Amino acid sequence: MKNTFGNNLSITLFGESHGVAIGAVLDGVTPGITVDMAFINKMLSLRKGIDEVSTSRREQDEIEILSGVFEGKTTGTPICIVIKNNDTRSKDYSLTKDLARPSHADFTAECKYRGFEDYRGGGHFSGRITAPIVAAAGIIIPALQKKGIIIGSHISECAGISDRDFEDISADIKALNGKEFAVLDDQKGSEMIEAIKCAKSQGDSVGGIVETAVTGLPWGVGEPWFDSVDGILSHAVFSVPGVKGIEFGKGFNIAQMTGSDANDCFENIDDNIVTKTNNSGGINGGITNGMPVIFRTAFRPTPTIAKAQNTVNIKTGENAILQAKGRHDPCIVHRAKVVVDSVTALALADLLITRYGTDWLSE
Amino acid sequence: MKNTFGNNLSITLFGESHGVAIGAVLDGVTPGITVDMAFINKMLSLRKGIDEVSTSRREQDEIEILSGVFEGKTTGTPICIVIKNNDTRSKDYSLTKDLARPSHADFTAECKYRGFEDYRGGGHFSGRITAPIVAAAGIIIPALQKKGIIIGSHISECAGISDRDFEDISADIKALNGKEFAVLDDQKGSEMIEAIKCAKSQGDSVGGIVETAVTGLPWGVGEPWFDSVDGILSHAVFSVPGVKGIEFGKGFNIAQMTGSDANDCFENIDDNIVTKTNNSGGINGGITNGMPVIFRTAFRPTPTIAKAQNTVNIKTGENAILQAKGRHDPCIVHRAKVVVDSVTALALADLLITRYGTDWLSE
Amino acid sequence: MKNTFGNNLSITLFGESHGVAIGAVLDGVTPGITVDMAFINKMLSLRKGIDEVSTSRREQDEIEILSGVFEGKTTGTPICIVIKNNDTRSKDYSLTKDLARPSHADFTAECKYRGFEDYRGGGHFSGRITAPIVAAAGIIIPALQKKGIIIGSHISECAGISDRDFEDISADIKALNGKEFAVLDDQKGSEMIEAIKCAKSQGDSVGGIVETAVTGLPWGVGEPWFDSVDGILSHAVFSVPGVKGIEFGKGFNIAQMTGSDANDCFENIDDNIVTKTNNSGGINGGITNGMPVIFRTAFRPTPTIAKAQNTVNIKTGENAILQAKGRHDPCIVHRAKVVVDSVTALALADLLITRYGTDWLSE
Amino acid sequence: MKNTFGNNLSITLFGESHGVAIGAVLDGVTPGITVDMAFINKMLSLRKGIDEVSTSRREQDEIEILSGVFEGKTTGTPICIVIKNNDTRSKDYSLTKDLARPSHADFTAECKYRGFEDYRGGGHFSGRITAPIVAAAGIIIPALQKKGIIIGSHISECAGISDRDFEDISADIKALNGKEFAVLDDQKGSEMIEAIKCAKSQGDSVGGIVETAVTGLPWGVGEPWFDSVDGILSHAVFSVPGVKGIEFGKGFNIAQMTGSDANDCFENIDDNIVTKTNNSGGINGGITNGMPVIFRTAFRPTPTIAKAQNTVNIKTGENAILQAKGRHDPCIVHRAKVVVDSVTALALADLLITRYGTDWLSE
Repeated sequence: MKNTFGNNLSITLFGESHGVAIGAVLDGVTPGITVDMAFINKMLSLRKGIDEVSTSRREQDEIEILSGVFEGKTTGTPICIVIKNNDTRSKDYSLTKDLARPSHADFTAECKYRGFEDYRGGGHFSGRITAPIVAAAGIIIPALQKKGIIIGSHISECAGISDRDFEDISADIKALNGKEFAVLDDQKGSEMIEAIKCAKSQGDSVGGIVETAVTGLPWGVGEPWFDSVDGILSHAVFSVPGVKGIEFGKGFNIAQMTGSDANDCFENIDDNIVTKTNNSGGINGGITNGMPVIFRTAFRPTPTIAKAQNTVNIKTGENAILQAKGRHDPCIVHRAKVVVDSVTALALADLLITRYGTDWLSE
Repeated sequence: MKNTFGNNLSITLFGESHGVAIGAVLDGVTPGITVDMAFINKMLSLRKGIDEVSTSRREQDEIEILSGVFEGKTTGTPICIVIKNNDTRSKDYSLTKDLARPSHADFTAECKYRGFEDYRGGGHFSGRITAPIVAAAGIIIPALQKKGIIIGSHISECAGISDRDFEDISADIKALNGKEFAVLDDQKGSEMIEAIKCAKSQGDSVGGIVETAVTGLPWGVGEPWFDSVDGILSHAVFSVPGVKGIEFGKGFNIAQMTGSDANDCFENIDDNIVTKTNNSGGINGGITNGMPVIFRTAFRPTPTIAKAQNTVNIKTGENAILQAKGRHDPCIVHRAKVVVDSVTALALADLLITRYGTDWLSE
Repeated sequence: MKNTFGNNLSITLFGESHGVAIGAVLDGVTPGITVDMAFINKMLSLRKGIDEVSTSRREQDEIEILSGVFEGKTTGTPICIVIKNNDTRSKDYSLTKDLARPSHADFTAECKYRGFEDYRGGGHFSGRITAPIVAAAGIIIPALQKKGIIIGSHISECAGISDRDFEDISADIKALNGKEFAVLDDQKGSEMIEAIKCAKSQGDSVGGIVETAVTGLPWGVGEPWFDSVDGILSHAVFSVPGVKGIEFGKGFNIAQMTGSDANDCFENIDDNIVTKTNNSGGINGGITNGMPVIFRTAFRPTPTIAKAQNTVNIKTGENAILQAKGRHDPCIVHRAKVVVDSVTALALADLLITRYGTDWLSE
Repeated sequence: MKNTFGNNLSITLFGESHGVAIGAVLDGVTPGITVDMAFINKMLSLRKGIDEVSTSRREQDEIEILSGVFEGKTTGTPICIVIKNNDTRSKDYSLTKDLARPSHADFTAECKYRGFEDYRGGGHFSGRITAPIVAAAGIIIPALQKKGIIIGSHISECAGISDRDFEDISADIKALNGKEFAVLDDQKGSEMIEAIKCAKSQGDSVGGIVETAVTGLPWGVGEPWFDSVDGILSHAVFSVPGVKGIEFGKGFNIAQMTGSDANDCFENIDDNIVTKTNNSGGINGGITNGMPVIFRTAFRPTPTIAKAQNTVNIKTGENAILQAKGRHDPCIVHRAKVVVDSVTALALADLLITRYGTDWLSE
């Protein structure tokens, strides 16, 4: 379904970076959910990142809700969210529009859309299109919270610098969700910011890893085989631009463990069935087991850099040198964190509504 | 859609490990594709693994095609593939049926299906259900090959031992696709097999990493945002039991690179636009760029081990000790390799048919 | 999705009339539903029709359930139902296989599948493929009944002879569901049967209209716009071979009424909101209003007749005369009745599960 | 998928009658299609109907395209179309907002959305939401025409007055597509308009039947069983408010014919395979046979009338009298004609793109 994700709670994206507007239609939302505009705006603000290490394109990201919300609550009908594009400097792109930016979608968009794509600022492939995802999730996340389901992520690694691991997940998430630069160890965060600035000063960029935890999920959520929790989450997370990997629980490291070390033994503690370890990241056979769902997402360094790069001219096929001029981010990891939270919320809410029905998120 | 995957070429799975039969319905297949039973059986044989390091359950895996094939060719209508279960020893499970095997789906199946699941041998969550996936892919892979699209995987790592990297991908895949234990460096393969045997002798199990390459894909395949090549492939790959991570191109390592190192610069070589490096794994913005698609899949060690483990009784909730008796694999990585190839083939064929129409795979 | 119908409860069909077997995979079924084989067989028997006015092809229609049922109850995993083809006389078709039977799918199948279709006995387009639909519904209908949702149909018209209208719907349905030739007025039924025999004796065929009523549906079921109850039901009903029209409530006749006559006024009777009339057939804005859902389905006369007909040779394009030899039905309306009931059950159960969750049909 | 229709070309609707705006997202459009705003506006104008027999609510219906169109052509990415609501008189509804209008969706919306729906002017169930469907189709219809596929409808019956039947379909469609009141016999059209005015003067409303023909469709389009041309078209057509029936070819009348009369015999005329008659409406086995696709859609009289009606108060359950005050249509058939054309275009284009690939509509 191309730009639509979700079975019973679905999001449909639209928009180009330098077009009239970007947006999303969120369908299947339980009626009666309170829409907290301040919360949505806070999430959008976090997505914009902090000035010193983010693009100088400063969109207001004022969202307008065209439908599906009445007297402050969701109606149950599709919610169309629109964000106007204002601060577009399309001429930044016109000079170099035929020069495919390495590791961007310029070339592949040309291949797919045969020259009819809106090339300005990455067009439909721009990371900017994640803003409506975040706004849509801004409606769903508080509803999940009221059901006791809490999602939180931190920048586990940036520019090679590691944050500390989750310890007390609930307390850690609580601390994280207010932060502009979401690390558990602020000292490490400062080091990361310095590294980003350093990359920026060199016309370069850096990447990182976001680690996400979800607590409070009921057990028994997810579907066998293709609509497994990990299958659905990975599908959603790879929709976020710049993602190159995802791992659940111990992830790639589990490949080096033995079964006896890796297995999460069950135990009954005070009439609650839990596992002693959580190497599986809260998922067995694609279904939640009641432990926190944990996964890590790898982000590449931003492909747009100020350094000169070899490339080809899409129209002529000739080799060329690209010297980018647009405004860009030396790092997107801290901005991407809230996008990962958002797709996680949407994907999980869809699975919950599939299992428990369309009214499940009722307040 | 739970047990159905794919938009225009879809597979629907059914079956339980110790039920009457397992199988799949493959719908949307281009009419007129030659069905090569020997090829399908070769793939099923590879999935069964080699005796010395695989389960002693030796199913014949004789497939029966009930529909959709006429006079040796696909008709275009749904192909139902059935594999009878013969060598079931359900009583191996009856004694311990209420003891949730750690890191298996026993507990989550109980949560989801409220006690009505077929618990024998993992039921619907058994890795055995991958056999019909492999059989279905056995129809599609030769058709892709005739279009110049070649898929190959090797055991990149097993029990901590690494195979060499891909060098000449086409030659490497050619060498791999005949092997029972798919490594590029057979010496390393022998070491891996020894390590698996060692784990087996200790009643334990090991995991590993499968690396997959796809050559010959046209550029411009894949859809923006949610039906991206990486999104669709990751969704398909997480359907394979035991997968805990996936990464494309440089994957998690790209998080530590700078943009200038990570970017894949385009160049025109003899009127063919290629990239100097392939850190992106052949995908930009979710769309193929004409370079090989490369990804790595992490497999956990098999959760069923002979060692005693702590667990709980699902029915009573009481703590218990589980001493497994069934026949199991000390490692599934070498068997999973062909399953990864299979879901890759099905997922890519779906994207190709979506782009080019239902007749695209015509011979 | 071609051969798959339903969002949360889905059915996938496979099989050809003269192939190895036909069948269906039913996915998304609530766990714990009792599977009553006698009931399923009774439905299949009704679908076979009564000897005197049905095809002389007498398939046993013995169903085999390969998966998804354990200890007599649904497990929640996909249920694969298989019916072997036994009584095939493919040579009846071989002589005339290139002569497109008028108003059959022979010609369009050739266009679509480019000569690779299994032409024998209508192949995948045969009405025989409705048997697995009926078997699948045979699992769902009793579960709906336990929730108070009752589906019943009668042959409202056959060969131009009309049955009486529904009066006391609940009592009428009760009377109908045991009948081999489902009419409310048995005298009219006898006349219909005579008319069918008469058509048969002339090597001809007749059609008719099936009227269906569903009682006990909760109000508020259905989705706005595209997943409306009428949209979904019509989609499902047109899947039944031979259907040329469907109308809800007053249907085509409402086009000649005035709004004041056609409107169904609400009234509160003993704290229950009902409508004085039911011209809308229980649906307003695509959503159930609590009144019985009523619709009528028009069936064409069976296209295969014994009379000589003009046609063309598909392979050569030459004009030809077809003198059919296969065994066929002079009327399918009485057999189709149970198929309409079946697709109705599957479509409504899907909408109910979408609304109330996957466990809604629990006993 | 609730408010989304289509597999490979999909439309997602949003909006409420008295909300900020209504609109649609059209996804999967072939890149490079010329967007003819004058054509779209002409279609929207036809949907508004002619003054004398339509609602006095006169929305400008100025559409804004937010995305997916660049330099006058489609890009291939989602097209978001927005129409602002301007001429809303919500207070017309506030007095009677708790009184369920008979045969409207007020009551069922309350049941489904549990009191959170936007009740004003029918909210999300308003016929006004068809405007974005028409605008979306306004992009697709010219592209289909360039492929030789022509869609046309006439008011076959209105207020009991019948138009003449199609004769020379191509010429008839040509004549129809420019008309504000689409009849083949203008004298009959004048009589219909008089009948509508008469109903209006009595505070009442009338219904009618729209007959649609599609010429130029390739043969072999459509999928077996569930994605049949008739299944898909009926699903789409029942999405249009007020539809109570649909029939293809001879429709309900075919139920009274014999097989020998009803069958469409093939013949080869000048190397073109056609049928002598077209009682099947261009479809055999759910697949196009190359003859014109013909169907008829029954519309109920507009449910909102000026006459007093019995009803209940949704909030209190008490019986009440409703005297409607809003601006309404005494007939919607002439307006609905263009909506039927529109959903037909979208549904068929989806089937064509499914069969032939996403680039099929290329100019």
